[in-house]
Amino acid sequence: MKNKQVIIDSLPEGKLVESNYKLVDSEIPEVGSDEVLVKTISFAITAGTRAGLQGSASYAGAPTTGIVMNCTGIGEIIQSTNEDYNIGRNVLTQTGWQEYSVQKTQSLTLLREGVDPSLYLGPLGINGLTAYFGLLEIGQPQSGETVMISAAAGSVGHMVGQIAKIQGCKVVGVCGSDGKCKKLIEDLGFDAAVNYKDANFRQNLKEATPDGVDVYFDNTGGMILGSALFRLNSGGRIACCGVVSQYDTSTPEPGPKGIPGLLVNKSIRMQGFLVFDFAEQYENATDDLLTWIDSGQLKVLTDELEGIENAPRGFVDLLAGGNIGTRIVNI
Amino acid sequence: MKNKQVIIDSLPEGKLVESNYKLVDSEIPEVGSDEVLVKTISFAITAGTRAGLQGSASYAGAPTTGIVMNCTGIGEIIQSTNEDYNIGRNVLTQTGWQEYSVQKTQSLTLLREGVDPSLYLGPLGINGLTAYFGLLEIGQPQSGETVMISAAAGSVGHMVGQIAKIQGCKVVGVCGSDGKCKKLIEDLGFDAAVNYKDANFRQNLKEATPDGVDVYFDNTGGMILGSALFRLNSGGRIACCGVVSQYDTSTPEPGPKGIPGLLVNKSIRMQGFLVFDFAEQYENATDDLLTWIDSGQLKVLTDELEGIENAPRGFVDLLAGGNIGTRIVNI
Repeated sequence: MKNKQVIIDSLPEGKLVESNYKLVDSEIPEVGSDEVLVKTISFAITAGTRAGLQGSASYAGAPTTGIVMNCTGIGEIIQSTNEDYNIGRNVLTQTGWQEYSVQKTQSLTLLREGVDPSLYLGPLGINGLTAYFGLLEIGQPQSGETVMISAAAGSVGHMVGQIAKIQGCKVVGVCGSDGKCKKLIEDLGFDAAVNYKDANFRQNLKEATPDGVDVYFDNTGGMILGSALFRLNSGGRIACCGVVSQYDTSTPEPGPKGIPGLLVNKSIRMQGFLVFDFAEQYENATDDLLTWIDSGQLKVLTDELEGIENAPRGFVDLLAGGNIGTRIVNI
Repeated sequence: MKNKQVIIDSLPEGKLVESNYKLVDSEIPEVGSDEVLVKTISFAITAGTRAGLQGSASYAGAPTTGIVMNCTGIGEIIQSTNEDYNIGRNVLTQTGWQEYSVQKTQSLTLLREGVDPSLYLGPLGINGLTAYFGLLEIGQPQSGETVMISAAAGSVGHMVGQIAKIQGCKVVGVCGSDGKCKKLIEDLGFDAAVNYKDANFRQNLKEATPDGVDVYFDNTGGMILGSALFRLNSGGRIACCGVVSQYDTSTPEPGPKGIPGLLVNKSIRMQGFLVFDFAEQYENATDDLLTWIDSGQLKVLTDELEGIENAPRGFVDLLAGGNIGTRIVNI
């Protein structure tokens, strides 16, 4: 039995390309004490992992070649040396882009039984928890306020908007195509959506936010962050979740003009966060998210590919804005 | 009786110059209902007022010529139509750069009797309150943490450092001359001070902050903010107080690189504020500040000029970093 893996063959220079990756067959490692062997069912491709492929070490680790591309996935335990983690149980873990992985038991989250496992790559996984804590704990929206979201059709963004609607907010999404805008409004209940590639983006954003913006959930940084700063009201909050506009390049832009001047003038709070900062509250958040899914208030958008060999293409396309919702690769 | 005034004669193009101002003699206006006539004793020159001289409207108002230059000052009531504000009382108010001004009573702060009035232009005035709330409410330093301050020898910065020492923090100042560095360490008890004009600034800052930075009190923005971002620890806080590096130019720089990427990676909170946000807590803050002054823990640095005609020169020089402590003009 061989382990099909996608490894990082070279680091990107400029934009990521498929040939930065290589498909290999390797041996499956031995399972040691307090470890399990996980057979991957599916994994999620998320923009944030691009940050680990260049520059200095970030939360995603230092850039290295010759290792399996990292990601979060779900899988089934097929060997175990710890009786709390039985064969046949489904888990959420850092599977990486590979068919099999040996995992320390402390790195596993056991999936709740009776819950669709695929939900753990979307609303109940890192994406959903990121949307939940970033909006509620960092953005702290109040009912009636306006919430603006960039990369609003992405794996995190499309959930942020729906959670903001549940809080009674007016929700305005920013995304990269008219098709995505339509879907956000018609399928997910956003109040407005604006295409940042439109030549009149700034004017359209202004018209979509007649009362200004109270909370901006930033997945992109760059020009859209710069535009948001001008729409923010006094006392506004920016939840800094990611910087997708800056990941896929060797020459990131400088920060937007008006930082920190506009923060001072408008008493704006701009706060970065990692979902791991809230690890102690995951269980409560999962309860809320499941309640909203069951009631139909939180709709799950996924964008699925079949076969591990398609992961590199799927990632390159995602960085170019090709996905709607959470991009999942089924093995 | 004439009123000597300094008015804004033209808006600066590029750097502010003395000839942007004009000294005029004008009539003293009538005192209306609920108003007083204030004879200016002294006023403070602060970098923040430069923001009101160009660009779009800010908290300092829209740029306009033909008006008296604004500033905070102390003065004596010499006519009054409200018995709660008697002739002879000293007040803090927006005197502007002029000898006499008519003020609405609601814009006056009566000075506490028995307290040196000049303290109200420093530690008990806008500068001291800005230092107090910006550090304690926005920065939230904990004992043992490292606090870094830019424009550390300025009217706000020199007080921030001393208040941080009172909180049990390690304090590192950034300023623009070796003489200022020496004064911060020897006279005010800073643990270290670094000259940003030194070619080895970044290396020197690194050596002065071996445990990283937990709170950065930013009076400058620009390059120093960019350097601070790299020294900040996870969970660090930036209190955005002012942008003096960006005021005295028609072409402000873009924001530092790494915004918002570094904020995300290190879960950093960056928060702008205006002292007026804390108006309800001024009395308590004044009690604390007076206690620290009386005990000798908070030393007051002032840098005084004589004569209203010297205000323009004093302001141009302050924007070039010429002052240590609060620059005050005595009339």
